[in-house]
Amino acid sequence: MARLLDLPDSVYIPRYGERVAPTGEHLTPPSSGVVARIIDEVYELCRGDTSGALADYIPELAAVQPDSFALCLATADGQVYGSGDLDTAFTIQSISKPFTYALALADRGTAAVAERIDVEPSGEPFFEISLDPTTQRPRNPMINAGAITAASLVTGHDAADRFERIRRSYCRFAGRDLRLNADVYASEARTGYRNLAIGYLLRGAGIIDIDPDEAVDRYFRQCSIDITCRDLAIMAATLANNGVNPLTHERALTAPLVEQVLSVMTTCGMYDAAGDWVTTVGLPAKSGVGGGILAVLPGQLGIAVYSPRLDAHGSSVRGVKACRELSNRLGLHFLHVTRAAHTAIRASYSVAEAPSRLRRDPEELALLRQFGDRARMVELNGDLLFAGAESAVRAVEEITGDLEALVLDVREVGDVSAIAVRMLEDLQAELAADGCRVALVDPDAKLGHLESSLDPADPRGRVFIDRDTAAEWCEQIILERHGPHRTAHAALTVADHPALAGLPADEQHRLAQEFEIRTLARGELVVAKGSPRAGLFLILDGRVRMSFAARDGRRHRLISLSTGMSFGEISMLLDEPFTHDIHAETTVRLAVLSPKRFDTLTEQAPEVKVALLERLAVAAYGQADAAVRALAAHGGAY
Amino acid sequence: MARLLDLPDSVYIPRYGERVAPTGEHLTPPSSGVVARIIDEVYELCRGDTSGALADYIPELAAVQPDSFALCLATADGQVYGSGDLDTAFTIQSISKPFTYALALADRGTAAVAERIDVEPSGEPFFEISLDPTTQRPRNPMINAGAITAASLVTGHDAADRFERIRRSYCRFAGRDLRLNADVYASEARTGYRNLAIGYLLRGAGIIDIDPDEAVDRYFRQCSIDITCRDLAIMAATLANNGVNPLTHERALTAPLVEQVLSVMTTCGMYDAAGDWVTTVGLPAKSGVGGGILAVLPGQLGIAVYSPRLDAHGSSVRGVKACRELSNRLGLHFLHVTRAAHTAIRASYSVAEAPSRLRRDPEELALLRQFGDRARMVELNGDLLFAGAESAVRAVEEITGDLEALVLDVREVGDVSAIAVRMLEDLQAELAADGCRVALVDPDAKLGHLESSLDPADPRGRVFIDRDTAAEWCEQIILERHGPHRTAHAALTVADHPALAGLPADEQHRLAQEFEIRTLARGELVVAKGSPRAGLFLILDGRVRMSFAARDGRRHRLISLSTGMSFGEISMLLDEPFTHDIHAETTVRLAVLSPKRFDTLTEQAPEVKVALLERLAVAAYGQADAAVRALAAHGGAY
Repeated sequence: MARLLDLPDSVYIPRYGERVAPTGEHLTPPSSGVVARIIDEVYELCRGDTSGALADYIPELAAVQPDSFALCLATADGQVYGSGDLDTAFTIQSISKPFTYALALADRGTAAVAERIDVEPSGEPFFEISLDPTTQRPRNPMINAGAITAASLVTGHDAADRFERIRRSYCRFAGRDLRLNADVYASEARTGYRNLAIGYLLRGAGIIDIDPDEAVDRYFRQCSIDITCRDLAIMAATLANNGVNPLTHERALTAPLVEQVLSVMTTCGMYDAAGDWVTTVGLPAKSGVGGGILAVLPGQLGIAVYSPRLDAHGSSVRGVKACRELSNRLGLHFLHVTRAAHTAIRASYSVAEAPSRLRRDPEELALLRQFGDRARMVELNGDLLFAGAESAVRAVEEITGDLEALVLDVREVGDVSAIAVRMLEDLQAELAADGCRVALVDPDAKLGHLESSLDPADPRGRVFIDRDTAAEWCEQIILERHGPHRTAHAALTVADHPALAGLPADEQHRLAQEFEIRTLARGELVVAKGSPRAGLFLILDGRVRMSFAARDGRRHRLISLSTGMSFGEISMLLDEPFTHDIHAETTVRLAVLSPKRFDTLTEQAPEVKVALLERLAVAAYGQADAAVRALAAHGGAY
Repeated sequence: MARLLDLPDSVYIPRYGERVAPTGEHLTPPSSGVVARIIDEVYELCRGDTSGALADYIPELAAVQPDSFALCLATADGQVYGSGDLDTAFTIQSISKPFTYALALADRGTAAVAERIDVEPSGEPFFEISLDPTTQRPRNPMINAGAITAASLVTGHDAADRFERIRRSYCRFAGRDLRLNADVYASEARTGYRNLAIGYLLRGAGIIDIDPDEAVDRYFRQCSIDITCRDLAIMAATLANNGVNPLTHERALTAPLVEQVLSVMTTCGMYDAAGDWVTTVGLPAKSGVGGGILAVLPGQLGIAVYSPRLDAHGSSVRGVKACRELSNRLGLHFLHVTRAAHTAIRASYSVAEAPSRLRRDPEELALLRQFGDRARMVELNGDLLFAGAESAVRAVEEITGDLEALVLDVREVGDVSAIAVRMLEDLQAELAADGCRVALVDPDAKLGHLESSLDPADPRGRVFIDRDTAAEWCEQIILERHGPHRTAHAALTVADHPALAGLPADEQHRLAQEFEIRTLARGELVVAKGSPRAGLFLILDGRVRMSFAARDGRRHRLISLSTGMSFGEISMLLDEPFTHDIHAETTVRLAVLSPKRFDTLTEQAPEVKVALLERLAVAAYGQADAAVRALAAHGGAY
């Protein structure tokens, strides 16, 4: 007879069937909405099935409301949908097995646990002893023999601590404090002769090292923990969310162990109905004689059902039916084929098609038109697992013609696997060997490159926070390789500035004197957003930048203007305040024509004003044209 | 003794071990590249393992090159990577089982097959007879008893035709003509006493209806079909590609049966090592004593290995090792958690943030600034399975504030499940009941709405081919609900046109006379792309549209201009040809000022020209500003 160990003080004993108040506001499922209605439909459909029988090997299990029924779905990001008796407590029973197995794996390591418990489906009912005839190992951790062995492997400084560690581990999965049901535990302990026999057999075979009474007692306790359907759904969602509880954000299990536990649930979780379950439901799952079933769609959601009438395999009748219905209706089968692998490349274009926002002079524009197709930007999206990375790499390897610069924009990428990182690094090295420089747009360091290398020989290349800066880097590579070797734009006098070009020499000179010269340091504010019309600004030397705050919270440049260009016309002509901040991007020297002087020019020198306006209009249309072209190239089918 | 049935003439018998020439150019794997190198690495790693023994129950299987080794990976879109003896022929053996099972399912239906063959893992070696003690059904189709039963269920007008149907079915999976290896078949047939015993037992139990000799003979034949490692990879990729051969694009199996077959492979494909395989490799798979292994990652890729030395379970030693290595390195475990569910919403913004390309007048612009946040566009991407649709629906349901128009842009969406369609329809109906009209941008009818409903009461709403037209539809709803009731813009005279506004009356009148009036029908070309400067065009009545051909092959509008607006200035001022076609969007009346008249205006009436240029520059900057704002709103962090 298993001993009743002293219960730690922390273990509160709720009355059986008592409604347990959930913690946290997230836990109230929406009562309306598209998804809530689908759950309701499945619930109503299954509610009519009153076949099956209550477990009756102990009186407590036979004493529950036989019609009680709850159905709950929790997404991997913590949204909960449910119908029915979501907060009715019942004992977890065999659904505890994968969680204790997980704790044993975490405590002892996968290899040490594998020496004691195999992972093969037994093809036999859960009460079979099923030890391997050669190794004496239990066939898997989902049958009682394997579960008792797993319970024996949990570490702790004494028996009470070892159980408490199991309980706390379940709590991390559920996101709230779970308690032992003392009545059920006492009954299990009083009548569990068969499990005690299994414990002694395992001890005899050397599979269990500790006192078999303690191992079996721990197993009885873990099976007697009270949970609700809602708890089970969150536990399932925690497995779906790679081991992190989506409500508390606490990690309950490492990702590799999640994979191991879900694998064993897949082949062994539904005992001798595992094959039928995989075929018709297709979700890793576990059922318990308490009437619960838990099922997991990795990465997406968890499902829980509570209905205590059981079928011949010891699983909830309505539970099996509801899981089957949900899987069919919602398309949850884990072998359901998707095309996710094919959507890795979102767009691919050259810098000739989508230039940077640095305004270029005509000579540079001509070079970029001619050679710009040698610098390409490739935008990736979706998860970058092997298949996604394979299509991305293949697409780049299939680019024909000379490639001198390549930018991979990974901002829209989701999950990135280690193999994808390696494949992209290999690709970078391969391209670098062919003389093509590679950069990333990766502000969140998804590929792990936290620093941008300035060394052109470093195959890791540059990392940019936005596509615009990367496009300018591409353009610079093209201009350096194909343009005449030249220094930066020479500084201009006002009279030399293109805005005054073509005027008769005397008028040029007269107008030039009307301008005031200003010099600003790098980073200094030239004109603030919201300023009233402040004059016509000619850039004599250096660069200015208009910038805006984007949806990603970062400041991005709208456009950079350099020597020989002008700004302030919009505000002057429309008599409207400046729409963006303008900062000096380098030390900059400006010539400014005051608004008053600009206005009076019409009467005093109409032909000068015509010439000036024509040049400004040309610049404006050039700017509009560039913006529209960028929109067409980027937006594609906007 | 199984009878040697007459072979159909079509069955060519290659010599055993002969290199079989592949068909089609797609089939030559790339010898270099990032992925090819990874495959090579795994190949080299596994090559050193020479443990295991050749199958020797018939002399032909023991006569192969024991060191022969091939590793091949084929993606679901038909890219093939491989190393080693990819074109060496070997017999398919037990890897035939899932394919004949698939054909039986297609011929007889899932329910009829389930009456004869269960889908439960047996936990026993492949040669076990494993009939269910109650129903007498073989435990699953992957053990010999189940495979012989599946072969007995294939339909055809005689025994030869039934085998020929099996062979042709395999050919559809492989994408080339596969042949029977007569030597192996003859040996199998001569020595297959145990399988004959199984056949007679099955006939005795009533599981097989036909002559058991015929069923077992067919099974021997299917096991003796010669394939190569490359063939197996394509067969696996066909399963990965939802049953469609990625090279021939021929459907080999329906999608629901693919799911059924992969489910059974998951739990039973690797016999008594199924649990270990699911845990460490995590791919539905099947091995054969010929030395082949086939594994499938649904939706993504197929893997095949050939190496004839077998382990104790009858599976290729190097094959198991290579699959384990590939799965680990490439992250292929089918329970590997991805975040795919969370990336369904790509962007969400109001029409105030991203207006349509119809240029609006100031009154309309003011209304759209005030109420434009009541019309929202939501761009979705990724696969729209349940979890993706759930997050999309939730995001829309969580939009606060009055919503009067909603556009769902599904152009970047991949696979769409039936449940996602239903959920989006439910959402439309829900929003329609609250007075919000819903439209789709869905040029490819991914959601199955082939026609755009013009009935405002139809909850299916409108379907647009691009976002721009949908945005204009949203704006129209806002303007109709919140603007003063008004008819279309009244037609203008030249003198009333804003381009001439503010000029002294006599000059206005004088200039107006210089314009020529033209009327064009809807759809008529106004100016062709590439035309030289053709004058200044004022729109007196109607609308014109500039359009461009986008990357999706469709024509999209760049911008629409309406009564009171002008065009042609860019070409006039820059002296450059028109960059886009301009068509009449409605019947349109235009006033045109010839280039010559425009040019001479400077000397004759400089103050008129200044006034005109100022107005044109204002229009140009307005256009530039709108384009830049659209770019910022749409591109976000461009």
